[in-house]
Amino acid sequence: MTRIAMLIEYDGKRFHGSQFQLGLRTVQSELESALSTYLRKPTQIILSGRTDQGVHAVGQVGHVDIDEDERALDLWRLNWAINGILKKDLSLRSVQVVPASFHARFEAVQREYVYRLLNRSQRSAVLKDNHYFIPRALNLSSMQEGAASLLGTHDFRGFRSTNADKSSTVCLVRRAEILNKGEGQLEFWIAADHFVYNMVRIIAGTLIEIGLGKKAPESLATALVAKDRNLAGVTAPSWGLTLHSVYYPDKYNLFQAL
Amino acid sequence: MTRIAMLIEYDGKRFHGSQFQLGLRTVQSELESALSTYLRKPTQIILSGRTDQGVHAVGQVGHVDIDEDERALDLWRLNWAINGILKKDLSLRSVQVVPASFHARFEAVQREYVYRLLNRSQRSAVLKDNHYFIPRALNLSSMQEGAASLLGTHDFRGFRSTNADKSSTVCLVRRAEILNKGEGQLEFWIAADHFVYNMVRIIAGTLIEIGLGKKAPESLATALVAKDRNLAGVTAPSWGLTLHSVYYPDKYNLFQAL
Repeated sequence: MTRIAMLIEYDGKRFHGSQFQLGLRTVQSELESALSTYLRKPTQIILSGRTDQGVHAVGQVGHVDIDEDERALDLWRLNWAINGILKKDLSLRSVQVVPASFHARFEAVQREYVYRLLNRSQRSAVLKDNHYFIPRALNLSSMQEGAASLLGTHDFRGFRSTNADKSSTVCLVRRAEILNKGEGQLEFWIAADHFVYNMVRIIAGTLIEIGLGKKAPESLATALVAKDRNLAGVTAPSWGLTLHSVYYPDKYNLFQAL
Repeated sequence: MTRIAMLIEYDGKRFHGSQFQLGLRTVQSELESALSTYLRKPTQIILSGRTDQGVHAVGQVGHVDIDEDERALDLWRLNWAINGILKKDLSLRSVQVVPASFHARFEAVQREYVYRLLNRSQRSAVLKDNHYFIPRALNLSSMQEGAASLLGTHDFRGFRSTNADKSSTVCLVRRAEILNKGEGQLEFWIAADHFVYNMVRIIAGTLIEIGLGKKAPESLATALVAKDRNLAGVTAPSWGLTLHSVYYPDKYNLFQAL
């Protein structure tokens, strides 16, 4: 048996999220179907975590166990073949043999997301599928001030959807910044050890309300302390969000050759 | 009568190019249809130039004459309304009143295009629609050397499709450079006073052959002097190409407020 880590990219538009759901098109089911075809046997995969319907990824990570010896396995051919089977909105950027101790979900030490905004007077025909369009002026420095208060360890109980799962709501945020990419394109980058359900989209929604002047920059810190979902902003739409990277311990040397 | 300049953006994927063609979905026909609906009368537009089927634009420019006095015309409402009528893959970024001397095609003094390449081992699910994927290694410095030889005034007779029109083949190239945007994303930028038919895509194809080592960097200069289409490379595919900007004399102050 050989364990393979996969670096996975998808345009979330036509997926019902990443996790398997009976009868729906999901990233997991499409990948499992392609692998089962190539390997000629039913095959299951584990992803680092779920992304919602409509959310994109350029650095999702998963793993799969294959019934072949590492020396008999041609990963180059497997990668090309899987990308030949998959539809155009899903691809394997890379595959790599990993030790059996590797686990895409439990060994992940950090996830990094980017939420993209388009802040200009009229909508875009080419950025529509991965930017949330906001036609009213945003105060960038207020948003940056709000984002800075996310850094460090906080209880994000007030920044999850009510149907959230039972995992810890205390997250260590190592990056939280807003970049101005020009021509109205803003990027909100956030990296943390883990995230609670809908956390990035609720933070993005809160930052947008801060940028619009509906909330004060310090309201984000206040909402964190209060742990009250009603003090945070609305959930920003899914299509602005991209899972950029998942990080693992250095010992795995994961996807270093890219 | 009021003349209006329009800054136009489109995702070329589902258009049969920019110019009107009977019975086909083109940028011109969709825009004319939307304007005719809003203005309640048949309306024609002039574009700065044609883009082929599949080519994108973020800075196409056109003009239209409207039967209303400038003071009676609410351009803000017109812009929002037209973007409400148009499908999502076509939008007006901005509209502006211009003097009757303005002409989107004849007054344009420079056009700027970007051709995007994705040079990595496996295809991308999110960049597929505006990058040409090249899985073999490209020599960036050879391509940059080739691109540099485009600068200045040259006869591009050898860099047009055989069905080309009759306009002058002598073009003044003011920008020709290749940028490495990271993660395998390369951009070839070219600006010139005008372009002959398929010129950017033929140059891009030639630069790719240079990058792959099939042609020497100096072969581009040789092909320019020889004016022989057979010495240039293949025509690179349309979806990598985006019309980025069209420039007009400063006196028009076109779209300065963006």
